[in-house]
Amino acid sequence: MATRARAALKSAASETDAAPAQPDMGPLPALIGYALRRAQLAVFQDFVQTMAALEITPAQFSVLLLVARNPGISQVQIGEALGIKPANLAVMMNELAARGIAERRPGAADRRAHALHLTAAGKTLMRQLEARVEDHEARLVDKLGAPGKQQLLRLLAKLV
Amino acid sequence: MATRARAALKSAASETDAAPAQPDMGPLPALIGYALRRAQLAVFQDFVQTMAALEITPAQFSVLLLVARNPGISQVQIGEALGIKPANLAVMMNELAARGIAERRPGAADRRAHALHLTAAGKTLMRQLEARVEDHEARLVDKLGAPGKQQLLRLLAKLV
Repeated sequence: MATRARAALKSAASETDAAPAQPDMGPLPALIGYALRRAQLAVFQDFVQTMAALEITPAQFSVLLLVARNPGISQVQIGEALGIKPANLAVMMNELAARGIAERRPGAADRRAHALHLTAAGKTLMRQLEARVEDHEARLVDKLGAPGKQQLLRLLAKLV
Repeated sequence: MATRARAALKSAASETDAAPAQPDMGPLPALIGYALRRAQLAVFQDFVQTMAALEITPAQFSVLLLVARNPGISQVQIGEALGIKPANLAVMMNELAARGIAERRPGAADRRAHALHLTAAGKTLMRQLEARVEDHEARLVDKLGAPGKQQLLRLLAKLV
């Protein structure tokens, strides 16, 4: 059998196969937004798995980190610093308060603007989270190399 | 007045200022996941603004592109290729069908597995979308440079 005939047969067989061929993705993989989204989802999936036992999402971690580093910070300041919508942040703070991780206290300057603090349990959780985030980040650096990570951060900063 | 005293006074003044100082972000900006998410949100915001008149999101665009390039493709194939959950994809296809952009036809092999196609209106819309995506992408390449884009795509691929 000629090589071409064999190739045609193989192609016909794979077309009728139960597992269909990878579809034509066109220009998609070369679009920055698409590539960013796929990488971000893969990294967040690793983060969520790393934190599974502690039940903390990437967004919750970033909020807790800001409260830990800036005791008394307001929801408005957190929302602006992290780019989280006020309504979403309010829901998240309710959850974290219900779980006894963070608490709202009356603000010093404006009693309506609550000052956010970690509880004692929240501070303990934060130390566990930070240790696990280091593991997560080390896994990513293994994939990129340390210079690759610096290059990536420089390029991402140009897009923001 | 000693330099240290002036610095302390300046610090005290900024603490009581109406516009609070940028909070301490700690290790957050140096974490790959955080930097990826901020860049992805910025790029998607530009995409959404670019498509405002056509009311197409990045996820809808990627689905329409796959249907355009692979007429008769199934929802399962699209979900696997793009990493979209079946339930989310079903909702999106309902929307696109209701808007007369895409349609489900009975599948050739398995009549329960619908074959997806663009309508004539969908094909016209796709041409408009592709022209606008080129503008969007060109703006991003302006920020990164063409070699920067290639570097970024290489680094992102290592994370997926």
